Amino acid sequence: MSNENIQKTSVSRRQMLIGTGALATGVMLGQLGGLVKSAAAKGGSTEKWPWPYKKLDPRKTAEIAYNEWYRVFCGGAVINSVVQQLREKIGEPYTSFPADAFVFLEGGQVGWGTICGSPAGANIIANLIIGPRIAGAHEGHQIAADIMQFYSETALPTFKPASPRVSTKIITTTSDSPLCHISVGRWMKAAGYPLKSPERKDRCARVAASTAYRLVELLNAWHDGKYEAQSDFSCGREYGITGQYNCEDCHGDNVPEPPQKKA
Amino acid sequence: MSNENIQKTSVSRRQMLIGTGALATGVMLGQLGGLVKSAAAKGGSTEKWPWPYKKLDPRKTAEIAYNEWYRVFCGGAVINSVVQQLREKIGEPYTSFPADAFVFLEGGQVGWGTICGSPAGANIIANLIIGPRIAGAHEGHQIAADIMQFYSETALPTFKPASPRVSTKIITTTSDSPLCHISVGRWMKAAGYPLKSPERKDRCARVAASTAYRLVELLNAWHDGKYEAQSDFSCGREYGITGQYNCEDCHGDNVPEPPQKKA
Repeated sequence: MSNENIQKTSVSRRQMLIGTGALATGVMLGQLGGLVKSAAAKGGSTEKWPWPYKKLDPRKTAEIAYNEWYRVFCGGAVINSVVQQLREKIGEPYTSFPADAFVFLEGGQVGWGTICGSPAGANIIANLIIGPRIAGAHEGHQIAADIMQFYSETALPTFKPASPRVSTKIITTTSDSPLCHISVGRWMKAAGYPLKSPERKDRCARVAASTAYRLVELLNAWHDGKYEAQSDFSCGREYGITGQYNCEDCHGDNVPEPPQKKA
Repeated sequence: MSNENIQKTSVSRRQMLIGTGALATGVMLGQLGGLVKSAAAKGGSTEKWPWPYKKLDPRKTAEIAYNEWYRVFCGGAVINSVVQQLREKIGEPYTSFPADAFVFLEGGQVGWGTICGSPAGANIIANLIIGPRIAGAHEGHQIAADIMQFYSETALPTFKPASPRVSTKIITTTSDSPLCHISVGRWMKAAGYPLKSPERKDRCARVAASTAYRLVELLNAWHDGKYEAQSDFSCGREYGITGQYNCEDCHGDNVPEPPQKKA
């Protein structure tokens, strides 16, 4: 990625949700010590980024995620698929990261059908390792956006495990959304299997594996200095509200107009 | 909460998304060592639950969250409002938890409008401290469900900071959803302020503060052995798909029927 592109992407990301005004204010206040003072109790060495990283094998990572789904479900599986390997290859700070706490990401957060745990888990990993944009690195934020787009636009699952637990053919569907409710709903409609079926569960295990595979491809590229942001979508910038790219998918022809800035 | 109620709630939670079949399989495989073996590199002491906890003042926590919003946005603000205080009162494992990595929860995860960062951050805290349901404690999962319901059903923000950064009156709205897109959209429609306005930003800072306030009330009750789960909603059990309670809100009269288990 050229410097010009990095700068361009960084700027567009900054403007994404909060607008440059809020960011500038945040930075200013931070420099003046006003807000930093409120954050009196600082974190330890885990809040220095980037965390050490060694390249992982996407296929091996996906196999771990697939199997881990049956222990810790989608979000926990994606997180553990990376964290467990880096505990072995590197040790801290991965050993101290409580990966299993993220079981609750299941079913779009305790079954409420919001963001699928697979992208939610992948976003956590990218930002744990690379760090938040307020710390100066933008690739964690960008990889998260890439994961959201990959998850939404790809016929999933892309990954087939070496030893599937379910012998039935698992069909692929494109969710056009990172939401669990929509992703699982579209797959169930196309495949005809209910929520509690072994087929639906194995489909979700393979989706977690597919997402972990993609995540590690992106992290490996970042590690090699070859990462280029794929997604340049900003709903805030384009439509004046946070959201997806396909308004009509939920709103039909009746897409509301958000309030605009008074001229 | 009586033992009978705890058991009842635990059972209903277990059945929530994955069904007792999947859980039983997971437990069985775990006991046989098949899956545990794949999780070769275990975490450290941070994966022993519950984490030490000392009761926090909800109002003080909400003030911290309000101010932190302007540094780390909704998810990072809720997480930091609890973690910073427990770093001071307790130390580890809070010192080593990389709270600032969660800035990306902003705008429903990097601006995509999925789950609002405030409940997403609160869910992380509840499950960090109490632990995941696979470790045997169900209150983290239950508090997360309570937070989702509180966020959806309450006219927010409930919290007004001692020194608001915006002097305009901030009206309240009920989102009927934990999604950022819907929560912010409904507020913007009712209030008439655009996404990039100081009013919208301050509304979101107060929503983060309101959520942190409620989270600490629930954690304090849990610490005192007085916590009773508020939410008994399970979309999976009731409707056969992960999701919210108000299908018609998005689907109108045309609510799809998910595939049912073959008899």
